[in-house]
Amino acid sequence: MDAQHHFDEAQRDDIYRVIALRRDTRHFKPGQLVSEEQLQRMLQAMHQAPSVGLMQPWRLLRIRDAALRVQITSLVEAERQATAKALGGRSDEFLRLKVEGLRECAELLALVLPPDDGTIFGRRSMPREMAIASLGCAVQNLWLAARAENLGLGWVSMFEPQALGALLRVPEGAQPLGLLCLGPVDSFYDAPMLELEHWRQRRPLDELLMTDSWSEQDGN
Amino acid sequence: MDAQHHFDEAQRDDIYRVIALRRDTRHFKPGQLVSEEQLQRMLQAMHQAPSVGLMQPWRLLRIRDAALRVQITSLVEAERQATAKALGGRSDEFLRLKVEGLRECAELLALVLPPDDGTIFGRRSMPREMAIASLGCAVQNLWLAARAENLGLGWVSMFEPQALGALLRVPEGAQPLGLLCLGPVDSFYDAPMLELEHWRQRRPLDELLMTDSWSEQDGN
Repeated sequence: MDAQHHFDEAQRDDIYRVIALRRDTRHFKPGQLVSEEQLQRMLQAMHQAPSVGLMQPWRLLRIRDAALRVQITSLVEAERQATAKALGGRSDEFLRLKVEGLRECAELLALVLPPDDGTIFGRRSMPREMAIASLGCAVQNLWLAARAENLGLGWVSMFEPQALGALLRVPEGAQPLGLLCLGPVDSFYDAPMLELEHWRQRRPLDELLMTDSWSEQDGN
Repeated sequence: MDAQHHFDEAQRDDIYRVIALRRDTRHFKPGQLVSEEQLQRMLQAMHQAPSVGLMQPWRLLRIRDAALRVQITSLVEAERQATAKALGGRSDEFLRLKVEGLRECAELLALVLPPDDGTIFGRRSMPREMAIASLGCAVQNLWLAARAENLGLGWVSMFEPQALGALLRVPEGAQPLGLLCLGPVDSFYDAPMLELEHWRQRRPLDELLMTDSWSEQDGN
């Protein structure tokens, strides 16, 4: 493999480092900007994601209208209250967590799954699953690109998709799947914020890794 | 931001480079191995993915039984034929494409969405979508880690999930979403193989990027 296509150990370790240090971010520095050059670099990286049958099932709406950002924030707040109710016994604990940075982040991007374009290649048997998984791959690219730019990104999924879709005037068959908050931060969390706040702890890899057939102890 | 948490321009560019050079791989060097050390590094990187409410909705079955690999390959072949039929006019063209490297790849991993664990945080309104999107993020981490190790990875989604689930004895509510082929390659494609083979061309980013509300020209 020629040098142009090869990654050496130092480069490999940079890539592992960005994967390890990436965080789902809810605390942003208010009143900041992301340069157009940075934004373009990151979005191009997102757009280099793989997708099933090359369908590229991701659309981004850059929210620039301040009044629209306020309306979106209200939808998220409504879903936050609905989530608190659904959580029952942990409702108060949940309401003390900071779950989004919509007001403070420099850039807000709405992530939309477009109407199905009928791609059959690689998704005849799992059409919706594979479109959503491809969209996930694209967001992870954006997340790592943002971290490499020393910027934070948070994926907010607390909203009613139909209500947000109506607000953004997405066509029938399209579905918003995320509100991506992007921008400068004061610092990055040392661990996922939900762990730092004692909401939930991650399980180690070896509990999720099996050989040949399903054997997970707890059946989950 | 201290040096430990900061990415400089050279490091940033390595990360953009791995994102740009990653390819969905179907051509592997046969008869190769991936070292346990490499495999562990890559799987840990995968496992560092974000997930909604920290639910970590990914399970991996490492396929080590050669007879099982043959059975899995048969399921994929059946779905390849079903796909060819569904494609109608492009059926012959499709059948000439190499769509998977199951026989040749060093390691085969079955990727399974586990039964829903009831996580409410961040997915009250979109439970299945957010689990699948999180799993997509994890695979993208693995993909980039593999590329940083100068290894190829291919995500094969041509199978009937129920038939594969039965073969792998996954519990009710779990669903296989991928067969991940991993291993050494002779070279990486310069562009997505589906483009090189003139199956389909990608659309440029600016067609998928809008401002404030949906405005895509072709409504797709």
